[in-house]
Amino acid sequence: MNALGFDAYGTLFDVFSVASLCEQLFPGQGHQLAQTWRRKQLEYSWLRSLMGRYRDFWGVTEDALVYSAKSLNLRLIPEARDQLMESYQHLAVFPDVEPGLRALKEGGLRLAILSNGTPRMLHAAVESAGIGDLLDAIISVDAVKKFKPSPLVYAQLASALKMDQGKIGFVSSNNWDVNGAASAGLTAFWIRRSKEVPEELGYGATRVIEAVTDLPPLVSS
Amino acid sequence: MNALGFDAYGTLFDVFSVASLCEQLFPGQGHQLAQTWRRKQLEYSWLRSLMGRYRDFWGVTEDALVYSAKSLNLRLIPEARDQLMESYQHLAVFPDVEPGLRALKEGGLRLAILSNGTPRMLHAAVESAGIGDLLDAIISVDAVKKFKPSPLVYAQLASALKMDQGKIGFVSSNNWDVNGAASAGLTAFWIRRSKEVPEELGYGATRVIEAVTDLPPLVSS
Repeated sequence: MNALGFDAYGTLFDVFSVASLCEQLFPGQGHQLAQTWRRKQLEYSWLRSLMGRYRDFWGVTEDALVYSAKSLNLRLIPEARDQLMESYQHLAVFPDVEPGLRALKEGGLRLAILSNGTPRMLHAAVESAGIGDLLDAIISVDAVKKFKPSPLVYAQLASALKMDQGKIGFVSSNNWDVNGAASAGLTAFWIRRSKEVPEELGYGATRVIEAVTDLPPLVSS
Repeated sequence: MNALGFDAYGTLFDVFSVASLCEQLFPGQGHQLAQTWRRKQLEYSWLRSLMGRYRDFWGVTEDALVYSAKSLNLRLIPEARDQLMESYQHLAVFPDVEPGLRALKEGGLRLAILSNGTPRMLHAAVESAGIGDLLDAIISVDAVKKFKPSPLVYAQLASALKMDQGKIGFVSSNNWDVNGAASAGLTAFWIRRSKEVPEELGYGATRVIEAVTDLPPLVSS
């Protein structure tokens, strides 16, 4: 394997790190707000892709926040909305990410992010996490105006890295994303950050790992 | 308006009528099984459409059931699985459906079902509900191999009824389905069967109603 693509949200960055701000703003309901927000964010990305009505991930994330607050009967004033959206630019990075990426990089692999996020969101999160020097490319679906798991998205890795698809692996904590990548012909690694069971979508992971630091021995050629 | 298309699952037929069998088979967890099953069924229809890996709704429904049982740590023996799948062919029909469709039919409208379900599933549900004589067409997405809310699905109404799209209304209890139909150019009615808030997808309902029996005065031309 010559290169690895990484999903960003949930895989490198902890989307539930927004939960503490949610809890601060809406005591007792922070956890449910964060959960609903994430679920709707994904639903809207899938629905808009299918409708042929792309809106970028920043917009979709904000729409999902507005829906979630309404559905939980929370009054979301503009200041709170802006604060929550802003927190999406500074998500916590999982502790295994920096050492894992560094070891892979030292092993000679080219590393990229492939994410639903907009270029602006991704660059902010990468900078906030201090992992920019480890990445060869930050690839956003915004270039193809379709969200994951459209095969158009995964095909971007090979074209951006100018490399044969067969030499590229893809890593995600989102099992549906793993299925999308595997269905598109990539070697897919599922990093199991929660106790969720795998999806029944027919295109499972080649390998299941616990942390980014598990990867180096598995991908050395 | 000359014709109305109806969503089937959740709109005419109560998908949560399977919950009592779920509860019988898995006491104390029936409600959660039914909820997870329905959510995953929709997720899989969206994900497979986006992946370009269509599998018919019977298959998707069974995959969703298998996932849901695993995720709740329930042991789903083949007999229970078959029994639950079979129950999907005999869902309860909402009480306003038969009188509502009859009044619309007597008002001269052409009526159709437009659903994710396979032709076999839809015919079984329609026969079980005894509403076959009120329907001019039963249209399944299976002909286009994409699920809702793809615009290809909604375009089937005009072609099946050989009628201009502008003269056709669409009715669904699923607000994302309403958004899909409205985005595809149909006049969309949201039948609000639960207390859910509308989705933030940008293509809302033309009219919000409480029951099929609310429609006749709204659609007389």
